Amino acid sequence: LKPIQSVAIVGGTHGNELTGVYCVKHWQKQNKAADYPEFAIEYLLANPEAIKANKRYLEKDLNRCFKLADLASDLPAKNNYATPYEQGLAQKINQQLGPKGQARIDFIIDLHTSTTNMQTNVVIIKTDQFHLKLAAYLKQTLPDVVITTESELMDEHHFLMSISDAGFLVEVGPIAQGTLDANCMQQTNNALAAGLEFVRRYQNNSLPKLGDSVEIMSYHGKLHFPLDSQGEVMACVHPSLINQAYPLIRLGDPLFQTFDGETITYQGEPSHLAFINEAAYYDQNIAMCLCQAKRYKLHDERL
Amino acid sequence: LKPIQSVAIVGGTHGNELTGVYCVKHWQKQNKAADYPEFAIEYLLANPEAIKANKRYLEKDLNRCFKLADLASDLPAKNNYATPYEQGLAQKINQQLGPKGQARIDFIIDLHTSTTNMQTNVVIIKTDQFHLKLAAYLKQTLPDVVITTESELMDEHHFLMSISDAGFLVEVGPIAQGTLDANCMQQTNNALAAGLEFVRRYQNNSLPKLGDSVEIMSYHGKLHFPLDSQGEVMACVHPSLINQAYPLIRLGDPLFQTFDGETITYQGEPSHLAFINEAAYYDQNIAMCLCQAKRYKLHDERL
Repeated sequence: LKPIQSVAIVGGTHGNELTGVYCVKHWQKQNKAADYPEFAIEYLLANPEAIKANKRYLEKDLNRCFKLADLASDLPAKNNYATPYEQGLAQKINQQLGPKGQARIDFIIDLHTSTTNMQTNVVIIKTDQFHLKLAAYLKQTLPDVVITTESELMDEHHFLMSISDAGFLVEVGPIAQGTLDANCMQQTNNALAAGLEFVRRYQNNSLPKLGDSVEIMSYHGKLHFPLDSQGEVMACVHPSLINQAYPLIRLGDPLFQTFDGETITYQGEPSHLAFINEAAYYDQNIAMCLCQAKRYKLHDERL
Repeated sequence: LKPIQSVAIVGGTHGNELTGVYCVKHWQKQNKAADYPEFAIEYLLANPEAIKANKRYLEKDLNRCFKLADLASDLPAKNNYATPYEQGLAQKINQQLGPKGQARIDFIIDLHTSTTNMQTNVVIIKTDQFHLKLAAYLKQTLPDVVITTESELMDEHHFLMSISDAGFLVEVGPIAQGTLDANCMQQTNNALAAGLEFVRRYQNNSLPKLGDSVEIMSYHGKLHFPLDSQGEVMACVHPSLINQAYPLIRLGDPLFQTFDGETITYQGEPSHLAFINEAAYYDQNIAMCLCQAKRYKLHDERL
């Protein structure tokens, strides 16, 4: 990893997740970058049109548009803009912050929220020693941080943050789409500041002891809502799971409750649940995600 | 009030309030109307295009389109449809269920949700003895019902339910837009069934004792988010108010918290707060609504 000098703080990658948008504006207005003179910090409201429309995205989820092949592709044009809209936007953002693989920006922090109880969820997409130490530092510094990763599901990642070689995504919840909440702002702010502090300490060799290993939740699947014979949703997530943070579920535990009040149980290996009843995933009929807690070793030496 | 024979159960007046939509579908699929043979019950998903788009509305809030003058007006046309879209839709719904003033449907129950802790909020737009007894019956039957009314703010009402001479609106929360939740479904279902049971008992003279009076929360104002010199929101609702159900606020109590952490206090008469940080009201910059608890007398005699 090359030394980190340039940092982008990104909000509004999803247009209805207001916390990141207002966090970015607040940092700009208060010139908080002055607290980190060793970094060239810039700000980005990634999807202004979606922010204006108060929607996650207009035509395609922007945070699924950053695979190299998609960034390189010629897009069909419609009414003077590339389509899908967000794929064209991703290409512009890649020119601005990247290009991915040899990016101008060394470190990206992308600010998100969830409608479910994800606590302060920090998402990393690499499990090299730098990112593992970042994870361990954030868990040690902030009491409610849970680290998740999709590194084992996807080789070449589609997140905006994948433009740079390093970075993380913060996802705080529960908060309804299109709203602000002081605690949620504070949690996001804390994760942002702690992330920058980690990079500072990593680079000037002043990290505290981080222990031998760090626990990371690793996604391995998704559960969909049950459908009736007409293809319509016929059950809710079971009430015992609503508002739970990463609960462990075992074979036979209640999973769904049909609109008639019948319980449908879980059939599978023990797993933790995340994004339980997440509003943003209803369009794909996803009721929740499955993850496993894994321990990753931390080494003392630098990479 | 003429005898109630025809009833409309309405969901999806706001397209991203899924509970009502699925409640209506569930009642249809299970033929629950068979439990109420004395009524001709019909169902309506009021705004199918907004449901499909998972938005409250496309162009105008449908539940603000039912003033007599708006129902009568000639609308400008665009691409073969009247505009705003929902005003044209309101005129069609008025033809289908109404017309308002001499409506075919005697009783409308309109199913809504809120992103805030409104409990089972039953909204009435008349405070005649029929509706006061409905209110008292629902409060007595269901433990978490709170009755609110806007009758004193608006003479000629703009709600869909105003097509008929009688009815009520149910608004259950907190639930995120575009999601379902078994408890929220159950609360909505309970209010729906209890409302029909009330009409049955009112008409066959078998109401239980309802007491001398009923408490109703009456709206008298709204509070907006504070803006900075650039016209941008500069504060969240104070954390002490988040998730509170109809809390009483007094002069000097914490009201907002700026993004810098400063507390802004309430300056006004003692009031209860409702729709605290409601997602649907951010587009109008409304942070919460103010209401007063008022007691209305119940009379023994029929109207």
